[in-house]
Amino acid sequence: MKKSALQIARAAYKPKMPKALYGSVKVENGAATQSVADQEEVKKLFPHTYGMPILKFVESSEQVSLPAINVGVILSGGQAPGGHNVIAGLFDGIKNLNVSSRLFGFLMGPGGLVDHDYKELTADIIDEYRNTGGFDIIGSGRTKLESTEQFDKGLEILKELDIKALVIIGGDDSNTNACVLAEYYKEINAGVQVIGCPKTIDGDLKNEMIEASFGFDTACKVYAEVIGNIQRDCNSARKYWHFIKLMGRSASHIALECALQVQPNICIISEEVEAKELSLDDVVSEIADVVVKRAENGNNFGTVLIPEGLIEFIPAMKGLIAELNDFLAHHQREFNAVPKDDQLVYVQKNLSAGNAKIFASLPSGVARQLTLDRDPHGNVQVSLIETEKLLAEMVGSKLEEMKTAGKYKGKFATQEHFFGYEGRCAIPSNYDSDYCYSLGYTAAALIAAGKTGYMSSVRNTTAPADEWIAGGVPVTMMMNMERRHGKMKPVIQKALVELDGAPFKYFAANRADWAIGTEFIYPGPIQFFGPTEVCDQPTVTLKLEQGR
Amino acid sequence: MKKSALQIARAAYKPKMPKALYGSVKVENGAATQSVADQEEVKKLFPHTYGMPILKFVESSEQVSLPAINVGVILSGGQAPGGHNVIAGLFDGIKNLNVSSRLFGFLMGPGGLVDHDYKELTADIIDEYRNTGGFDIIGSGRTKLESTEQFDKGLEILKELDIKALVIIGGDDSNTNACVLAEYYKEINAGVQVIGCPKTIDGDLKNEMIEASFGFDTACKVYAEVIGNIQRDCNSARKYWHFIKLMGRSASHIALECALQVQPNICIISEEVEAKELSLDDVVSEIADVVVKRAENGNNFGTVLIPEGLIEFIPAMKGLIAELNDFLAHHQREFNAVPKDDQLVYVQKNLSAGNAKIFASLPSGVARQLTLDRDPHGNVQVSLIETEKLLAEMVGSKLEEMKTAGKYKGKFATQEHFFGYEGRCAIPSNYDSDYCYSLGYTAAALIAAGKTGYMSSVRNTTAPADEWIAGGVPVTMMMNMERRHGKMKPVIQKALVELDGAPFKYFAANRADWAIGTEFIYPGPIQFFGPTEVCDQPTVTLKLEQGR
Repeated sequence: MKKSALQIARAAYKPKMPKALYGSVKVENGAATQSVADQEEVKKLFPHTYGMPILKFVESSEQVSLPAINVGVILSGGQAPGGHNVIAGLFDGIKNLNVSSRLFGFLMGPGGLVDHDYKELTADIIDEYRNTGGFDIIGSGRTKLESTEQFDKGLEILKELDIKALVIIGGDDSNTNACVLAEYYKEINAGVQVIGCPKTIDGDLKNEMIEASFGFDTACKVYAEVIGNIQRDCNSARKYWHFIKLMGRSASHIALECALQVQPNICIISEEVEAKELSLDDVVSEIADVVVKRAENGNNFGTVLIPEGLIEFIPAMKGLIAELNDFLAHHQREFNAVPKDDQLVYVQKNLSAGNAKIFASLPSGVARQLTLDRDPHGNVQVSLIETEKLLAEMVGSKLEEMKTAGKYKGKFATQEHFFGYEGRCAIPSNYDSDYCYSLGYTAAALIAAGKTGYMSSVRNTTAPADEWIAGGVPVTMMMNMERRHGKMKPVIQKALVELDGAPFKYFAANRADWAIGTEFIYPGPIQFFGPTEVCDQPTVTLKLEQGR
Repeated sequence: MKKSALQIARAAYKPKMPKALYGSVKVENGAATQSVADQEEVKKLFPHTYGMPILKFVESSEQVSLPAINVGVILSGGQAPGGHNVIAGLFDGIKNLNVSSRLFGFLMGPGGLVDHDYKELTADIIDEYRNTGGFDIIGSGRTKLESTEQFDKGLEILKELDIKALVIIGGDDSNTNACVLAEYYKEINAGVQVIGCPKTIDGDLKNEMIEASFGFDTACKVYAEVIGNIQRDCNSARKYWHFIKLMGRSASHIALECALQVQPNICIISEEVEAKELSLDDVVSEIADVVVKRAENGNNFGTVLIPEGLIEFIPAMKGLIAELNDFLAHHQREFNAVPKDDQLVYVQKNLSAGNAKIFASLPSGVARQLTLDRDPHGNVQVSLIETEKLLAEMVGSKLEEMKTAGKYKGKFATQEHFFGYEGRCAIPSNYDSDYCYSLGYTAAALIAAGKTGYMSSVRNTTAPADEWIAGGVPVTMMMNMERRHGKMKPVIQKALVELDGAPFKYFAANRADWAIGTEFIYPGPIQFFGPTEVCDQPTVTLKLEQGR
């Protein structure tokens, strides 16, 4: 593997950790916990892992000598910057407890456990991946660990390798499944602890005890870098409106954080659209209004940030999609028999009046996509909709109408962008390097303390690293019951953007100024070697949440 | 203007310069020059500015005291990182010669000169923009200075402001026009010197004396950063082929430089496609072959870099587009009368056999774009063609055929990206910060030396900055005669990728390994504060060209 100059220089970085973790630690038990909702149901499903206390690691003068232990690790789901550092922290943590401890990585996600596909992660391998982006050290995958068959199959290889603890690095679903696995192994007395680590780029695995999911910081900074560059271009050329879609299907944390970092003219927040029950036309009108106002000042340019999941948060669009799914599922044969050029009209005729009107208002490319591009279950593939182009086109049409009506005189030309893959495997920022390494090291401490069904937790991360608090939080504490594929299931509650939270409120208080003024900020690329105010800042979201 | 932490820290950076420029300088005259071709014609067009010697500035012990001078500056054409530093260097340069000298910026490009739209650039303003990206200090524009009416109109405001020298920062066309202006002002004895500065992100303004156009270094590094991130993702998830289009319509320097930095599986070089007279199907087949070979090793993923201008370099596509332009220009009414759904068939029927076949092979979206999206002159808008999607779709179709024929068994899923605006206004790298500042400072020295029709030249830039060589090169030296809009005109010869040059040869010697192996490099973000091997490297292209 030929390395870039930065990669070589960066390999030498020593991640910072909570002070307590540097020496021997002891566990401080907090109060017993409850799930966030549906306590009775969750308790019944997790008799062995429900109600456990929150844990905190504090310094201890006592030297503990622990037997060597074999540990397994799995990367689950989409890539996020810092995954390699979680593994490096875990490796150093278990080696620190006993140099003969060994770490095994299961390959290409949870499937590696079930298929017995693994490799031992030795010091040489770990050193190649310290402070790097990507999940390529062992790969990742989206297989869901849900059935006892999978659990039993996994146990075979765990027994064979004498693995006593398994660390699963993943998002809300993966951590939910990690807890189900922990409960099962406890119940059958398998002798395998299961510990989770909170990863999502989208930032939607977040609560009182898990203040950030790793990767969110780095990804947002990469997106903010390129958006900032686009904004500077926008403000120099003064002739384009840039419509920029950002990752985040189920929550708008990324769009909001980027907005806080770059101060765009417009940022749509899906959660607000849903709460206000806005229609697609409302969203389009809001954008068009800003375009008109800026044009009155001679500013025929600007930036619009759009969260990837927007369409699914618009109640009317959700209704349309539901009816489309339902109608097409029952009329696929008839639909296919209609000549291609008449299909849109055919669909429109068969929809209820309200939905037919919305359907007719969509650009034909989008309408076609909604009826033709369907997943194997026959469902509309909302993620394929190019929302940034859809909005740009619809705003353009609205402005044409306004021009005809004499209400608008500007020029409107657009450029569209979508940023996702650009950030998921970036070299982790100092924050994510430190945070991830600490999460992995804390996971090792949870293993040493004999815990299972816990998620590694590192808090107070807006303070300098030595004031960070390491501990564990029972996964069941974050759960509630939700309907999934028609069945009630225990799941970790997703953290959406809270409209009464400090980050959104700051945004809402400033957005009118950002819309009309041109108050762009240009964050520039992530820096690793410079002054601390440049290199060591957490997200604006987290700072606002913690009142810093 | 609220500034990011990096912007504040970066403001303090002192750009490095050639050693000679720090003190008093004297001019060393080199040999008299000739234009690169068509010497007689060019000489006839530029009687006052043809044949001048190459200049070099060397240290001098003599203290010169110069009268105060008013200088004008113009940013012309597309944004490129470092433009603000050219202006800062120019400002510091003329102030160093006489503190009472003044700098005026013409607004929104060459149009500002003609329309008398300007502002004085004082120390306060300059300080706000040191080491920043963008052209927003005075804006830029694409008005071409070509007519004597424009020159005379410009002279009015130059006289009014007592401006004795004008610096035009632009690409090949803008510098050509700067030279025409220099010649004209000399001829009419206007008393205004004109100096050019070489800017193009595309890197196609380059020759023996101008070893790099500013902005190319930074932009390529930004693109290489995000491509590297995508490659790490690609190598972690192992399930997508990423088709990545990059800026560069008339030359593939950016794609080549990015390939040298990231080692993708495939990089198309337009100049090679043209030289080998490849068809679109040839290009598609080459990509498909690599996909098939990688699939045989279980690697159903990879990256393909595509230069923006590819389509126009494919001789057969060029032929098709020419016939389409010609046919539609003469049959617009007939075309419009055909029902929309029959238009493609109508066009196909009326094309010559060879072109009809190519037209029929295109995905219908592209065929539609070629016939419908036309510029105000009725010409096909090649720049709107989403070449990255076109190639991904056509490779997919080819693989389907191969699958049916039993020659391919892999999976092929794609993601497409286009990077352009992400890099044009990035914070300039150390290289571009230094290079641009030196170019501006050198322009001041050229003014002090009484020169006109020269381009600011800074060479030997793969060596440490104090060994750089500052001087001037007569613009006429780079010219030849080319047909533009049906007329022969003197223009600066565009530098395309040379297939016998060291950068391409290095790429060609390694690409087979990069294709089959996964030898991705991950450059990471531009660093400003770290070790010199990370922060102070010129492009790989330049290093290879200079044998470093």
